[in-house]
Order: sequence, then C-alpha cells, then structure tokens
Amino acid sequence: MDPSSPADTIPKTLIDVSELSVALATFAAERDWDQYHSPKNLSMALVGEVGELSEIFQWLTEEESRSAGTNPNTATAVHEELADVTLYLVRLASVLGIDLDEACRQKLQKNAAKYPIAKAHGSNKKYNKL
Amino acid sequence: MDPSSPADTIPKTLIDVSELSVALATFAAERDWDQYHSPKNLSMALVGEVGELSEIFQWLTEEESRSAGTNPNTATAVHEELADVTLYLVRLASVLGIDLDEACRQKLQKNAAKYPIAKAHGSNKKYNKL
Amino acid sequence: MDPSSPADTIPKTLIDVSELSVALATFAAERDWDQYHSPKNLSMALVGEVGELSEIFQWLTEEESRSAGTNPNTATAVHEELADVTLYLVRLASVLGIDLDEACRQKLQKNAAKYPIAKAHGSNKKYNKL
Amino acid sequence: MDPSSPADTIPKTLIDVSELSVALATFAAERDWDQYHSPKNLSMALVGEVGELSEIFQWLTEEESRSAGTNPNTATAVHEELADVTLYLVRLASVLGIDLDEACRQKLQKNAAKYPIAKAHGSNKKYNKL
Repeated sequence: MDPSSPADTIPKTLIDVSELSVALATFAAERDWDQYHSPKNLSMALVGEVGELSEIFQWLTEEESRSAGTNPNTATAVHEELADVTLYLVRLASVLGIDLDEACRQKLQKNAAKYPIAKAHGSNKKYNKL
Repeated sequence: MDPSSPADTIPKTLIDVSELSVALATFAAERDWDQYHSPKNLSMALVGEVGELSEIFQWLTEEESRSAGTNPNTATAVHEELADVTLYLVRLASVLGIDLDEACRQKLQKNAAKYPIAKAHGSNKKYNKL
Repeated sequence: MDPSSPADTIPKTLIDVSELSVALATFAAERDWDQYHSPKNLSMALVGEVGELSEIFQWLTEEESRSAGTNPNTATAVHEELADVTLYLVRLASVLGIDLDEACRQKLQKNAAKYPIAKAHGSNKKYNKL
Repeated sequence: MDPSSPADTIPKTLIDVSELSVALATFAAERDWDQYHSPKNLSMALVGEVGELSEIFQWLTEEESRSAGTNPNTATAVHEELADVTLYLVRLASVLGIDLDEACRQKLQKNAAKYPIAKAHGSNKKYNKL
C-alpha cells in the first residue's frame, strides 16, 4: 500500500460515541421512550435541533459567527444546541445500528478521492451540487 | 455526593471526536477551505445534510424506518448521510472551539433533571415545546 | 396544442403572493431591516421556522398528525409555524426577484412529465432519490 | 377603528393559493398518493426541499446570495427549489385544513405588535430568541 494514501493516514479511531450511546439508551429505556425513538421520529427531532442552531446564526455576519462560541450573547445557546444535535445524532445512529466511526472513515476516504488537493485548492466550486 | 445522582453515573468520556476533528482541520487546511468554514456557513451545510437524511425517511412508515440501516434500498444512503452530518457537526464544534463531550455531559444532566423518570414514563408530553 | 396536455389544464394563476410580498417589504423598510434580509440570511430563517414546524409533528404518529390542524393541543402552533414559513418564503422569493407563480407552474409541468399517472399510481418509489 | 392601525392597512387578500391547492390535490389523487401525504410526511418533504435550498447559499457570501436569482450558475436551482418548497408548503396547509391567508394575516398583526417601528429600527436584536 502506498504509505501516503489517505487511508493510511486516517487514525484507528476517528470518533468514539460508545459511552454516549449507552447513556442515551439507558435514558430512553428508563422512561419507556423506545416506542417514540423510531429513526423517522429521531430524524425529525434532529431537524428541530438543527433549526434552533440555525436561528443562532441567521442574522449574524460570517465574521460575527466565528466568535459565537465565546460571545456571552450566544455562547450558552451554541453549547446547548450543539449538544442537542449531537445527542439526537448519536441516538439515531444507535437505533439504526450504524457504526459512526466506520461510516465517517469511509466518507473521509471518499471525500479525499472526490476533492484532490491540487484541484480543490481555494475553490468552493467543488461543493457545487447544482 | 449522592451516589445515585445522574452526574455520578455519567462516565468520564461520553464522546471523543478529537481524531476526527484533527482529520477535518487537516483536510480543510490542505485545500485552503478555512476561509469558507465560518460557523454560519457550516451550520448551513449541516442543514443541507440533515435535509438529505430526512429525504430517506420521509415516505417510510415508522416501522419501515427501523430497518433502514440494513435494508439494501436505503443502507448506503443512511450510512453516507449520517457520516456527512457527523463530519459537519464535528467541524462546526471545532471552529467554534466547543468541547462536545463537555457540552453533552451538561445537557444530559439538564435533561435528567427536566424529565424525572417517574413523571416522564411512557409519555411523549415531556417533549412538547408548544 | 393537445387539449389534454398538463400545461393546458393548469389555471392562469396558481398562486398570488403580491399583496403579502408588498406588506413584507413595507414591514422591513419601516424597520430598516433590508440590510439583514439577504437571501442567505432569509434561507436560514426559513430553516429555523421549518424546524419549529417539524417539532410539532416529531413525536406524533402519521394518523395523529392528520388532525393536528384542529386538535386544541397543536392547532395554534400549526397555524403560527405555517404562517412563519410562508412569510419567510414569500420574502425570500421577493428579494431574489423570483416569480413564485411562474416557478410553480414550471415545476408542476416538470413533475407531470416525471411522474406519469400510469407508472406512479400508488407507489412511493417515484420519490426515491437514493 | 384607528385608521393607522396595522389591521387597517392589511389588504383583504394577502395570499391566494386556492388554484395551486386544487392542482396539487388533483395531482396526488390521480396517483393515489393521498396515503403518503400525512402532515408528518409532508413536513419531512418540506425539510428536504428547504435543505436543498440551503445548499445553494451555504458557501456564498451574503452579497453573492443577493444575485443568486439571476446568476446563471444558480438561477435555475433557485427557481426549482423555491417552487418545491412552495408546493409542499401549500399541500401541507391543504391537508391540514389551514387557511394560509388568514394565518398570515394574524401573524403579520402579531409581528407588528411585537416589533414596534420605533424600537426595532435597524436592530437585529428583536429577532433574538436566545
């Protein structure tokens, strides 16, 4: 294998959500909420939280948004909404039986092939899905 | 401290995104994409990916959605979209300087206080934000 | 022209948002809000409102969702969130200079060609974008 | 009634979606799609389309977004996605039995009371939901 290939440079564990996944499963089981936690419903809850995150940034300039994590007007909301998005994302992957670490590894490799450094440099064209 | 308090039962590390965070920062730096990765822009990219996730489930019943992670018609899309959401979420937290593990810990404790087991049991009323 | 073609059966005006468009422009001008109403920002505000709409339905069954417009627990929220989505959508089209009536007409014709009645009957496969 | 009150200046019809609503009901009935068009499902489809709209603007500056409706790189996508959002919104209101014109009228009046011109002038604080 080429030692400089992207696959070679990706570490063994990219993301470890195992403890959070267990904590959320316990939280749901204790409240008898598994019945509501279908992937369809959880994806909608994820949408709701991403919408709340969007509301924080909607009237800020890009520049203002860069300090939103520490600005006292927005820091608490940013922390809370990012946490909410994370909780629903991890819970959704869990009920779907998806290994997020493996899914991210494959996507990183795919993106590395899709956006070669030389061609993608400093261009936002690569993202263009239109 | 009460040994049965939620804080006590939450493990030391809920989620570890450090390696993925570094991999994404390297990926962006190599392509000179930091200029596009404002929190405002990344939150919009997160919305786009959550929208694609939503499209997978929109016409499925809740029951059908439960097997979407293994159903050959949807499994690949589910893996890819969950990965895309994860990548943008971790990148967004990174540029904002947010510690996702700490944010999730605080939110879990808040939720445990907000939805006591006895009151929340088997009811979806607790979620009602209306 | 074939009298049974879809184009022939589409009425002259599908949607008329002219008065609302003017009312929203006046509302913004009176408050000096045009500076905030870039299409980028308005699309994010639209996301926020669609997220709030999603939250109403997320834990309801499909069956329960069918009466959400009249159920006293949800009717007010449904009215308000649908209105908010409409206001931002019409304002967004307005600042972009898009004729929504014409855009809808073209999309209806495109959809009629894409989903012929005989093939699409009773199947949700046609929607499948995966 | 005070002739300068907001209620007085709102025209009789703000938005008329009646023809589009009928066209969409016919379109669905001809394909036997009513079974899929629960408000829950339609709200998810709306999310998917708003996500696609968001993807158009995500890497554009605010300034660039202002000409996205006429820029040849984005104009077609903007027209199509705005139409898609409109179609699902009107269909959703229709199956819920909501009068969008009346809902918008009430919301405009509420907003006029919430954001008095003198206080809201040139400030994006009024939007702050945090």
